[in-house]
Amino acid sequence: MKKITVLTAALLATTFTLPAAAQLSVEDQITARKAAYQFMSWNMGKIKAQAVDGDVEFNVDQMKAAANAIAAVANSGMGALYSPDSSLDKADNTRLKPDFFQNPDRAREVGMNFGREANKLQDVAASGDRAALARQFSALGQACKACHDDFRAEK
Amino acid sequence: MKKITVLTAALLATTFTLPAAAQLSVEDQITARKAAYQFMSWNMGKIKAQAVDGDVEFNVDQMKAAANAIAAVANSGMGALYSPDSSLDKADNTRLKPDFFQNPDRAREVGMNFGREANKLQDVAASGDRAALARQFSALGQACKACHDDFRAEK
Repeated sequence: MKKITVLTAALLATTFTLPAAAQLSVEDQITARKAAYQFMSWNMGKIKAQAVDGDVEFNVDQMKAAANAIAAVANSGMGALYSPDSSLDKADNTRLKPDFFQNPDRAREVGMNFGREANKLQDVAASGDRAALARQFSALGQACKACHDDFRAEK
Repeated sequence: MKKITVLTAALLATTFTLPAAAQLSVEDQITARKAAYQFMSWNMGKIKAQAVDGDVEFNVDQMKAAANAIAAVANSGMGALYSPDSSLDKADNTRLKPDFFQNPDRAREVGMNFGREANKLQDVAASGDRAALARQFSALGQACKACHDDFRAEK
């Protein structure tokens, strides 16, 4: 799915400058981005349960749907939800550190990594290979963690 | 994308009986389903702005990504997030009427309609036809409204 990876790059690059909708309020940006990650988290939980922990019987169609949802989040142009006044020093109800805007190259890098690993997850889920899906789940988790480590404040 | 529509039907049918993860608490179910709809709403807003209202320049890649996100929500097996004890008479922080569980055939019907119209939206967005996308946006909106009318309490 190289095409999709390229598309992700294009979307990420685009959404840092060109919003897809009229610019949302900071409050609405924060609501939307938290919802996106929360929805993703639910889908990550399904992959963890079936492919990693084996708590629930492995179902390839459910894994495809979950990975598809995660990739759709990663490809949705979330850059538009990060206006410079939406970090915790300027806005409520967010743990986003101001560093995110002070280090735009790193912010872009973690965003691109997230997109790339999520697209790989979608590919691997489509293959039906449980062990490979567990490995890619871990790789995507590392991409999530890299952003949290750098840019998310402790609770 | 008939295959996807059939998959949706299978997933919806499946998820009413077979959870994809260990059963979440009612609180977590409500959090996840609200996040899913919130994320979808952000993506609906992009389609409204570009295809319906024309407030923002029409960008076919952004429309594809938005419709893809909406379809991914619809195909994510949200039936697993509606355990019978998750309506407003038994749970906090939800507007879900108990009627949802008293009329399972109707609940299934609105869920299936949502999936079908969301998958059509994805197809139409891929075609790049703005007018058709505006029409399908409206059709999906009607499917959303049908569920709200029957099963969502007023604020």
